[in-house]
Amino acid sequence: MQTNPSSPLVGILMGSDSDLSVMEKAAATLQEMGVPFELNISSAHRMPDKTAEYARTARERGLAVIIAGAGMAAHLAGVVAAHTTLPVIGVPLKSGALKGVDALYSTVQMPPGIPVATVAIDGAVNAAFLACQIIAVHDAELAKRLDDKRAETRTKLEEKARKAKADLGLD
Amino acid sequence: MQTNPSSPLVGILMGSDSDLSVMEKAAATLQEMGVPFELNISSAHRMPDKTAEYARTARERGLAVIIAGAGMAAHLAGVVAAHTTLPVIGVPLKSGALKGVDALYSTVQMPPGIPVATVAIDGAVNAAFLACQIIAVHDAELAKRLDDKRAETRTKLEEKARKAKADLGLD
Amino acid sequence: MQTNPSSPLVGILMGSDSDLSVMEKAAATLQEMGVPFELNISSAHRMPDKTAEYARTARERGLAVIIAGAGMAAHLAGVVAAHTTLPVIGVPLKSGALKGVDALYSTVQMPPGIPVATVAIDGAVNAAFLACQIIAVHDAELAKRLDDKRAETRTKLEEKARKAKADLGLD
Amino acid sequence: MQTNPSSPLVGILMGSDSDLSVMEKAAATLQEMGVPFELNISSAHRMPDKTAEYARTARERGLAVIIAGAGMAAHLAGVVAAHTTLPVIGVPLKSGALKGVDALYSTVQMPPGIPVATVAIDGAVNAAFLACQIIAVHDAELAKRLDDKRAETRTKLEEKARKAKADLGLD
Amino acid sequence: MQTNPSSPLVGILMGSDSDLSVMEKAAATLQEMGVPFELNISSAHRMPDKTAEYARTARERGLAVIIAGAGMAAHLAGVVAAHTTLPVIGVPLKSGALKGVDALYSTVQMPPGIPVATVAIDGAVNAAFLACQIIAVHDAELAKRLDDKRAETRTKLEEKARKAKADLGLD
Amino acid sequence: MQTNPSSPLVGILMGSDSDLSVMEKAAATLQEMGVPFELNISSAHRMPDKTAEYARTARERGLAVIIAGAGMAAHLAGVVAAHTTLPVIGVPLKSGALKGVDALYSTVQMPPGIPVATVAIDGAVNAAFLACQIIAVHDAELAKRLDDKRAETRTKLEEKARKAKADLGLD
Amino acid sequence: MQTNPSSPLVGILMGSDSDLSVMEKAAATLQEMGVPFELNISSAHRMPDKTAEYARTARERGLAVIIAGAGMAAHLAGVVAAHTTLPVIGVPLKSGALKGVDALYSTVQMPPGIPVATVAIDGAVNAAFLACQIIAVHDAELAKRLDDKRAETRTKLEEKARKAKADLGLD
Amino acid sequence: MQTNPSSPLVGILMGSDSDLSVMEKAAATLQEMGVPFELNISSAHRMPDKTAEYARTARERGLAVIIAGAGMAAHLAGVVAAHTTLPVIGVPLKSGALKGVDALYSTVQMPPGIPVATVAIDGAVNAAFLACQIIAVHDAELAKRLDDKRAETRTKLEEKARKAKADLGLD
Repeated sequence: MQTNPSSPLVGILMGSDSDLSVMEKAAATLQEMGVPFELNISSAHRMPDKTAEYARTARERGLAVIIAGAGMAAHLAGVVAAHTTLPVIGVPLKSGALKGVDALYSTVQMPPGIPVATVAIDGAVNAAFLACQIIAVHDAELAKRLDDKRAETRTKLEEKARKAKADLGLD
Repeated sequence: MQTNPSSPLVGILMGSDSDLSVMEKAAATLQEMGVPFELNISSAHRMPDKTAEYARTARERGLAVIIAGAGMAAHLAGVVAAHTTLPVIGVPLKSGALKGVDALYSTVQMPPGIPVATVAIDGAVNAAFLACQIIAVHDAELAKRLDDKRAETRTKLEEKARKAKADLGLD
Repeated sequence: MQTNPSSPLVGILMGSDSDLSVMEKAAATLQEMGVPFELNISSAHRMPDKTAEYARTARERGLAVIIAGAGMAAHLAGVVAAHTTLPVIGVPLKSGALKGVDALYSTVQMPPGIPVATVAIDGAVNAAFLACQIIAVHDAELAKRLDDKRAETRTKLEEKARKAKADLGLD
Repeated sequence: MQTNPSSPLVGILMGSDSDLSVMEKAAATLQEMGVPFELNISSAHRMPDKTAEYARTARERGLAVIIAGAGMAAHLAGVVAAHTTLPVIGVPLKSGALKGVDALYSTVQMPPGIPVATVAIDGAVNAAFLACQIIAVHDAELAKRLDDKRAETRTKLEEKARKAKADLGLD
Repeated sequence: MQTNPSSPLVGILMGSDSDLSVMEKAAATLQEMGVPFELNISSAHRMPDKTAEYARTARERGLAVIIAGAGMAAHLAGVVAAHTTLPVIGVPLKSGALKGVDALYSTVQMPPGIPVATVAIDGAVNAAFLACQIIAVHDAELAKRLDDKRAETRTKLEEKARKAKADLGLD
Repeated sequence: MQTNPSSPLVGILMGSDSDLSVMEKAAATLQEMGVPFELNISSAHRMPDKTAEYARTARERGLAVIIAGAGMAAHLAGVVAAHTTLPVIGVPLKSGALKGVDALYSTVQMPPGIPVATVAIDGAVNAAFLACQIIAVHDAELAKRLDDKRAETRTKLEEKARKAKADLGLD
Repeated sequence: MQTNPSSPLVGILMGSDSDLSVMEKAAATLQEMGVPFELNISSAHRMPDKTAEYARTARERGLAVIIAGAGMAAHLAGVVAAHTTLPVIGVPLKSGALKGVDALYSTVQMPPGIPVATVAIDGAVNAAFLACQIIAVHDAELAKRLDDKRAETRTKLEEKARKAKADLGLD
Repeated sequence: MQTNPSSPLVGILMGSDSDLSVMEKAAATLQEMGVPFELNISSAHRMPDKTAEYARTARERGLAVIIAGAGMAAHLAGVVAAHTTLPVIGVPLKSGALKGVDALYSTVQMPPGIPVATVAIDGAVNAAFLACQIIAVHDAELAKRLDDKRAETRTKLEEKARKAKADLGLD
């Protein structure tokens, strides 16, 4: 990657400050993986022009991927995707009475031509990993870090498995 | 109403020409009720700027109500509502695998501050009646026509009921 | 508007006193927007005659819009809509095992001719804003207040966004 | 039963003439079981006063049970139940995009005090059997006919089973 | 009714002792309405023979109605209905991950010939009222008590409405 | 296996002759795998005693597994499971308005102690394979045939894949 | 059974250590029924090779049944089933926003040829009973213990029923 | 891009040849956008080893993105994602009784660490566009083609809109 390392490659957007508790996990994951990012709150409905402007200028500002998290009638990712051909990752958030099913459908069921790469409800961590995987298509070093991270996760899980079996007296 | 009768009071929008077969029923109902309207196809995702512009200028162009029909991740009504404080009526359309449940949730579950007046899935006729009822708040003549229309519907239904019972040999 | 400012323009109805905690947000929003309203508890099932009478006389008593909130088999908005051609806004409430999906379907899936303008589950605030938007079709001053309110909301959200980024050390 | 045999004991109601193709099965079943009935089309929303009047006078007119079939936001059974303490059987009908889930929830999720005895979606036949079972609580002869009918159904099913096995070459 | 008043007319069944907290509301309502009842725990799956026997002998033991409450794959009401032509009222209970949707579908979607009169999820109170309404078809005094109860409920609700408005400073 | 090869090891049950078109696929699969079976129609609700008797005597009659297919409020597998400790495989069938979701929930959500091994909606073929896999736990030859069948399926799929690519001009 | 009693017959797998609180109930039930088992944590996604290896070698290591519990996009049971023709029991776990509906569909809707015997959401106890029932097809003593266990459960439930009725003053 | 233009950048996978009618739209879209691809049928359950091998070697074979389409318990995308850190796009397919809701949940609800970029049910076209957008992060020319394609789509839609209005006599 010829990009200036301090310049953000991933833009994290969310529709409301109440979404921060989930979406900051995307930030933490990107930080851990060493991928520079920026984070903004920009509602598709309450700040439509700012949101459109953000998406429209994203590529020229050097962003490679946009992550958009929103709940209920979650239009944010779709609105962003309408204004850029950068990959847009949608994180449907679990809020309100329908617990995120509404946000999932609103995010994933996009019409032909305007895709949103949707992850699980409240899946902010995976949105960040997916952003890394997209950037790593041309960044062998980051691809290596992703592989290492998987190995590390596997090792930790194996350790937990051993401990769990010991706790149950099953080893 | 002091509005020029030939100037449209209701704007019917839809995201795709494939929505016409349902949405033209809204047009037919408005025509029957004598309410002037315009009809446009403007996708929230494929024509975002035109859609925003349409909504932003709607009030000054003399529109009183906007009806927006869309299927799947139906963002159209919400995107329109984000750009105007005119009442926006959303018609979730039954298309794709989820048969309109996605469109219903995407249309109705709007965040505080940006309401969409949602009607039934494929409820284009009721969207038109609702638009009429909104306009009739200050148009006593239209209110009268709405009452007459209900009486007429009731009479037709009673006639059908009589015929149905006769057909079954139950009268 | 030639209406006496102290005479209510919006009637807020709900089926049970247990609905008050949600529905009083509609009252608070109308108060903030300066729109006179009245509030009543009138169950579609336990007080059917009073409910019908309320709807039937609403227009002549000077109401412009009725907001009806109900949970479970939420028939209130539909029953009210059957007795008036005023715009009726339905608020499906999240109560019981189905968490408001039942109330949403019971409120929004109305048959042709009798529309209910449905908002989100527990969307009492938006019901009030929608009522304001309907009244503002012929009240330029209220339309202005609605625009101002949106601008104010946007400013507050931008301020929260700045604060959130500062808290995360991202500014 | 001291009731005049020719006077109807069961009132079958439906909201629209399009519901007849399903609801006439209730009529056919009652006829087969020898229970006198009447059948009417009376929409909860388009003929609210007639519907209320029908329910309010049902007991004094000699009805023992009311069967109400409706689709979508199926308020008919609930509205009828609000105006009588006779047992009301609700038949949710499969119409529109939601295929009867809306009608099921609108019919069954009634608030405390106003029950609707709900049967399966499009379950008009069972509505009629349930009406018979209710009347048979005090009509030993009808109870006997119900038992006989079950035995007859069982015998027919056993015959079909034998035929099916023979067709498959499995007997 | 010629029945000995102390002999139970309604049999309340449930599949597990954990269902008691909901189902005892049916008992309380029957008690309040002066309808004699019995209450038993009898699982469709863990005590199938006892359950079948209970249903098979219900009519001859003088029962007029059976109320069956069960959660999850709620087969109890259906299994009881298979063994009697008395009216069987099913109460789907909200337990487990699916929160009663499973129990609702398992209870209401019965095949032709074997109806279950289904009430709302956790609707034990309405099951009792429905049982009363069924018995009241031939018990004018109970019908009168049901009417009085409705009037009393209405009065209480009106009183609550007055109090709520006073609390909000809206009277 | 010491069992007489001509004596059935698997009992296929279904609630109605209309279920045959799906359930005969289970028979065909068992036949192909060389596992002797019997097939019967026995409704949980319309033939409860025969069904209970069938289940109760299944083990002593030499059955190893019972496959039960039913639609709507699909109680058949559960009722059978209540009367035997043989493994019972439930096939939820897609019939009626809810398209098998009701049958899936009614079949799979069994209470502790009475399991039903549930396969996909209309999954009669897999019910048969699962029955084979259960029997193959102690039948090495059948286990071998199952492995061979999988290899054969794989080979056929690879052939189809080659053909499909050739058809698309992609090889 | 000729198997060495101390060698495990059932393998309990789960995708994460957070699944232990539910899945250890399967272990407890197997222990109570005297069926030797092993327990492992092996994620389908994070340890795919170990999981495949586990399944591929299961039969030769003497396992008769595998129980696999997983939440959300619960692929574990299906992935295991793809690598063995032993019976695989899937336990969909209630985790995340969709509360186990996702896990249920991911577990039960397997394609023809690769069945998963699915039990209720969080149904770890029944997974263990089903495993016992499968093993008991050729283990008369275990079949006897399963029958005894059912009788014991029935007796306990009857005792609880007596106590509950006494507590309510209904005996 | 330094990649040999004739070497595939996108791998399209599907679980069955019956998925071809939908998935070939992804191929057509990639072809139109000038992005080299390969297409294979490889079932997660019936060819698990080949599928794992395909994913494990994808990056070294020069693939940048994998598109995986599957229906029902759609494990394919997840299984592929478990074996590579390349971006994996999942296309849930509408097959079977649940019409793709099962496939959507099975595809999108992945656990932390193993993301699948999910598009709409049957959204093969968008999967291809998303793949293009991912590749275009480092391919300015492709990014330009994507922008041009959007402009072309917009122009076509505007033309259709004009024609539709003319057909309705509304221009």
